[in-house]
Order: sequence, then structure tokens, then C-alpha cells
Amino acid sequence: MSRIENLEEHLIRLNQIGIALSNEQDLNKLLATILQEARSFTNAEGGTLYSVEGKRLQFMATQNDVLDQRNNQVSGPIANTKLSLSLTKNSMAGYVGLTGEVIYLDDVYEIPADRPYHFNSQFDRQNQYRSKSMLVLPMKGPDGTILGVLQLINARDKKGEIVSFDPQWEELVMSLASQAAVAIRNVRLTEELKSAYFDTIFRLSVAVEYKDGETVNHIRRMAHYAALIAEEIGFDKDQVELIHYASPMHDIGKIGISESILHKPDQLTPAEYEEMKLHTVMGGRIFAGAKAPVLKMSASIALTHHEKHDGSGYPKGLKGDEIPIEGRIAALADVFDALSSNRCYKPSIPVEKCLEMIKTESGYHFHPEVVDAFMRRLDDVLTIRENYP
Amino acid sequence: MSRIENLEEHLIRLNQIGIALSNEQDLNKLLATILQEARSFTNAEGGTLYSVEGKRLQFMATQNDVLDQRNNQVSGPIANTKLSLSLTKNSMAGYVGLTGEVIYLDDVYEIPADRPYHFNSQFDRQNQYRSKSMLVLPMKGPDGTILGVLQLINARDKKGEIVSFDPQWEELVMSLASQAAVAIRNVRLTEELKSAYFDTIFRLSVAVEYKDGETVNHIRRMAHYAALIAEEIGFDKDQVELIHYASPMHDIGKIGISESILHKPDQLTPAEYEEMKLHTVMGGRIFAGAKAPVLKMSASIALTHHEKHDGSGYPKGLKGDEIPIEGRIAALADVFDALSSNRCYKPSIPVEKCLEMIKTESGYHFHPEVVDAFMRRLDDVLTIRENYP
Repeated sequence: MSRIENLEEHLIRLNQIGIALSNEQDLNKLLATILQEARSFTNAEGGTLYSVEGKRLQFMATQNDVLDQRNNQVSGPIANTKLSLSLTKNSMAGYVGLTGEVIYLDDVYEIPADRPYHFNSQFDRQNQYRSKSMLVLPMKGPDGTILGVLQLINARDKKGEIVSFDPQWEELVMSLASQAAVAIRNVRLTEELKSAYFDTIFRLSVAVEYKDGETVNHIRRMAHYAALIAEEIGFDKDQVELIHYASPMHDIGKIGISESILHKPDQLTPAEYEEMKLHTVMGGRIFAGAKAPVLKMSASIALTHHEKHDGSGYPKGLKGDEIPIEGRIAALADVFDALSSNRCYKPSIPVEKCLEMIKTESGYHFHPEVVDAFMRRLDDVLTIRENYP
Repeated sequence: MSRIENLEEHLIRLNQIGIALSNEQDLNKLLATILQEARSFTNAEGGTLYSVEGKRLQFMATQNDVLDQRNNQVSGPIANTKLSLSLTKNSMAGYVGLTGEVIYLDDVYEIPADRPYHFNSQFDRQNQYRSKSMLVLPMKGPDGTILGVLQLINARDKKGEIVSFDPQWEELVMSLASQAAVAIRNVRLTEELKSAYFDTIFRLSVAVEYKDGETVNHIRRMAHYAALIAEEIGFDKDQVELIHYASPMHDIGKIGISESILHKPDQLTPAEYEEMKLHTVMGGRIFAGAKAPVLKMSASIALTHHEKHDGSGYPKGLKGDEIPIEGRIAALADVFDALSSNRCYKPSIPVEKCLEMIKTESGYHFHPEVVDAFMRRLDDVLTIRENYP
């Protein structure tokens, strides 16, 4: 194995990449960086990342400069995580995923007959592409478990000719692949945790709302509308996520309202209506003193989503900017959905009519800025409405 | 700056440490590894880690070989995260935390008079220790933000003499510190997310249980008892965490039982009792089809925590090992707490009497293994009982 020129520089760079990878929270950006850096070390024109998922290899991302140039685009990682192949020795990626061995091939169309794996030329045919040299490496966790496979295609020399992969890079790229494996696993663990969290909030919110004759999809739509408006108003990504998580719990305080009032088919008496209004206060109380940002926001939304811009709402009769922004957003999201969907006690109102009603209430029930943001995202609002009917 | 011998080896090692750090999920182990490795590069006998928290520097971990040897122990990171100092230029750590500069000192008792910081000799006096040479470095995130401070004390040469820190290590240790900063931040973000998650589950479970006249602390105790038994039975750390998260929701199905039954002061009629039993099925239904492990476990616990070992329980009359282990654990945790605490409808039974009842029911209501595990952890059970009265 020839000695790498400027090995120290490469090692320093490798370490910097490691830090960047463990800092990246966005899975797609992470995958793109990993492929980019692995290709940069080996001067490969293309690459693919797979993750080991039980007995399958899941396709995670791919990059190819030649195809990108031809199509005049920059290929992001392909987000289609439904593509997978079975983890067997028949494919190169599968072989490496199972054995942890490294495969070098000078030409994938000339794989020695005694190898268990063969090359699937479908991609080449579909894209009029010529895969030639290949390097396939396992992505190992610190305990040696194979977490994924990194496949690099067509190394090029300084003249741009396709050449075989130089084994001198193996150690560096293996090390990068390990760092990458851990970073991918960390990001996915966080995503799984967040998704479990959201699912819990959602299911418990639905359980409470069932008592009120609401539907699962009201909560889904309302959370999406709130997130849309927040995004349009300029909340950053984390804040949008917070309101998406927090808003399903806006009516959680109904848990404390007696059934005779919640389920009363007739109009509530003034006294009953006063009790009903308390669901806002009770919701706030359920989350009182919480430290987590999402629960603070839940408390705020539960407490203020029935306040109105002109001060005629409840429980406190707050006016305008006295109402926290998340309460103003949730109010519109909640009312629009209530108006525009069927409820047991009323048929739905046509959307156009609902929008008119919302506009009419701008400056009265609703904050004008929130109404404007909502209207600017009307296309997205209607898509959400169709997706969760 | 003299050239480091075997720089390549050190760089390769640095990269391996980086992978190990990003793989570590336990904050205390992570802190210990960071200090250990930073001290190993510089041959420092002691070190301290601080994190920047707003306008304060929070003390996170410390290590000192000399004091350990003297006390004949291995110092873990000190878990007392209440210790903090204000982030000002008066202290060395504060100065570095604010400016991002690196400080080298040959002797901390001879800091030049023109420096804004001074050395606090309290630790030395309290421990009859002599701090001499010191290296204080910022822990920077990839965007340059100062996330923490790493303070290394008393470098030693090959003869064991205290010497000044050699600037040749600065780049390596700075790089390690960056990797460490990101790893610490990631672990803490995950911990915060988990704690928000648990708090949400807990608050919503309490909200549901309030209707049933239960107390906040019943849910706390019950979750702790379940985790204890699981630990004793041999669940791994993640599984123990799962049951701790999942068990607060064991009675969530009561959300679907009418108030007239839940709050009935008299004995339930047979028909009412049948309806009451349905809270298990409804609980299972709330989490039906969930993908997250914690919700699957919640579904299972909600559904099976009223089954009995001898098959006389409900809703399905499952027997022995037909009852999932988490259901068996939750059953005991729930019943012991119900017996041993005050409820609105009954005074508490003395603990000794409760334990007798549990033992008598071993093999009938409860699985014998679960009872045995519970009894082996009786001390911890009683501590929990005292902590959440």
C-alpha cells in the first residue's frame, strides 16, 4: 500500500468532518455530506448509502456527478426510503452488509465467476450510464456491528479517466464510514423519539376529544394549519415543530369538564357555558410549571386559544398583542377547521364561505397578521384538508 | 512549536475517540471519557469540564489522579450540576468561556498582575492540593459558539515532575474539545427531549386519573415500582426506561368510562362493573397500531394490568405466562400502591399487612417471579414510598 501524500492534512480534515457529521441534525443533509466527503477522498463520481434494517438493506441516498451534469441538476439524496433489497450475498452491497468485507472491483461487468455476488445493470441501462470501478465498504458501529454499506462508483484520476479505487484510502474512508454510521444512527434515534412523542400526544389528545365528538382528523388538520401559519409568519424550524406538537393538546382541559355539559345536545345555559369556558384554564393548569418548551407552549395555547383580538374572548378577555402569538395562531386554525368540517351537530360550510367568515373576523376575532399569513398559504391549507378528510 | 512525534498515530487516535464520543449516550460516561482523553494527550494529572449555560458556567465533571490515589478511589465525574460560577473574566474558566482564548499558566499562584482573572485557591486549601501548571481551552461548536470550557491541571513529564503544558498539543486538544462539545450537546438534547416526553405522559395521565380521585403521586410511585421490578427481573436499561414511561398510562382507558360509573360512591352493579372493566380494552385501543416501542408497551400494560396469574382477571382471563411480563409487573406495582396508600374511599393499610397480602397472592393474583423480584427490592420500594407521599 503506497503512503498517502499529506496524510496529516487528510487526518485533520477527517476529524473536522467527524465533528460536522455529529453536529448535523437533518438526516438528508447528513447523508449528502457523508457521500460528498467519501467521494471527495477517493475522487469517485458517484456513491450510494444503504442502511442495514433487519434482513434488508435500505437504500438511503445516492449521488452521481455525471448524471447530474447531464441532467443539469444537483442530485440530493433520494428520499425514497421504500426502496430496499434483501440482505443476501447475491448483491455486492448485501455481501458487504453481511460479511463486513471490503470489495474492490476494477470493472463491475467483469466480476470473477467464483464470487457469490453479481452486478445489477438495471440502473446503468435505465440511465444510459456505465458503472465501472467500484469500492464497497461496511459502515461499522464502534462495537463492530455493521450498520450500513457505502458503495463508491467510478474513481477518476487527475486526467479524468476512470481508474480502480486505490486501497490507500481504505482506512480513512472506513473511519469516515464509522463516524457516519454513528451519526446516522443518532439522528434516526432522535427522529424516532420525536415521532413516538408526537404520536403519544396525538393519541391522548384524540382520546380526550372523542368525548367531545371530534374526529381524529380535526386534530391532525388543526396541528398542520397551526404549523403552516407559524412557518408563514416566520417561526424558525424548531418553533414550527413546537407548535405542531403543542397544538393538538389545545382542548385537553375538556378532560375536566363534566360529561353532562360536554355532551349536552341542547344549548348550554349561561351557567353551563361558564363552566365549559373553564376548559381553557384547566388545560393551562395541566401543563402549569412545566419546563419543556413544548409543554409551555401547550399551556399557553390551551389557555388562550379562545381569546379574541378585540378582547371579547375568554377566559381573560385579552386584547391584540396581549394574546400570545401561539394562541392567536391556534385560535384561527381551530375555528377554520371547526367551520369547514362536518360535526355531529352541523354540516360543513363550503370553504369559500368559511374563508369569507375568517376575513370578516380579521381585526375582531382574529389577529389580522395571522389571517393574512393563513390566506397566503391557502393552497397548502386546502391540500391538508384533502389529505385528512 | 515543536512537531509532535507520531502525529499520525495521534490523529488516528483522535478520530477514534471522536467516534466513541458520538456513540456514547450516557452523559456521565461521556464526560469521564472526554476528561480522560484530554488528560492523556497532555499527561495532565487533573481536569475539569464546564458548560456555558446562559450567563453562568456550570461545573460538569472533574478528575484528579493524585487526589484519587490519596483517597484510594477512582473519581467519577461529580454529578452535582448545581455548582456553577458566573461567566465573568474574573475566573480563568470564565475568561476562556467569554473570550474563546486559550490560557497557559506555568504556575497558577503566579498569574501576572495585568490579567483580569485570578486563581481561586479554595480547592487547593480544602484538599491540601497544589495546583501549578494549567491549560484552559474553550470547547467550541462547529459554528464557533463557545459551549464549554476544558481546564487541565498539572502536566507531568516522563520523570513525573510537574511541568508547563506544551503548546504542541493545543490543536489536538482543541479538536477533541470541539468533538466533546457536540457530543455533550447531543446527549443533553436527547435527555431534554426524553424528559419533556415523560413529563407530557405524566401530566396527561394525571389529568385522566384526577377524574378517578387518584393522586399525582400514585402515578409517580407506580411507575417507579414497575421500573424497579423490571430492573430486578433483568430488563436492560432501555427496557426499564420503556416501562417507566409506559406504565403511567395504564389507566388511560378510563377516559372512555362514563363519570356516573367512575365517580359512583356506592358499589357498582354487575353491569356497571362490566363497563368499568372495559377501561383496559379502551386503553389498548388508544395505542392500537402504534409503532413506537413505548406506545406498544403502553397498549400492552393498559390491556393486561388487570389480568391475574391464575386466570381470574380481566378482560381476557389470561393465565400465567400468557400475560405479557410488562402487564404482570404493572399489576403488582398498581395493586401494591393502591393497597398501601390513602384513597378517598379508604384509609391506607400498613405496609407490613400489604406485603403479606401480596405474598399470599403470589401464584394467584400475581406471578411468583414478579413478587420475588419486588420483595428483593423492598428497601428501594419503601424509599420511593417515602419520597412521594
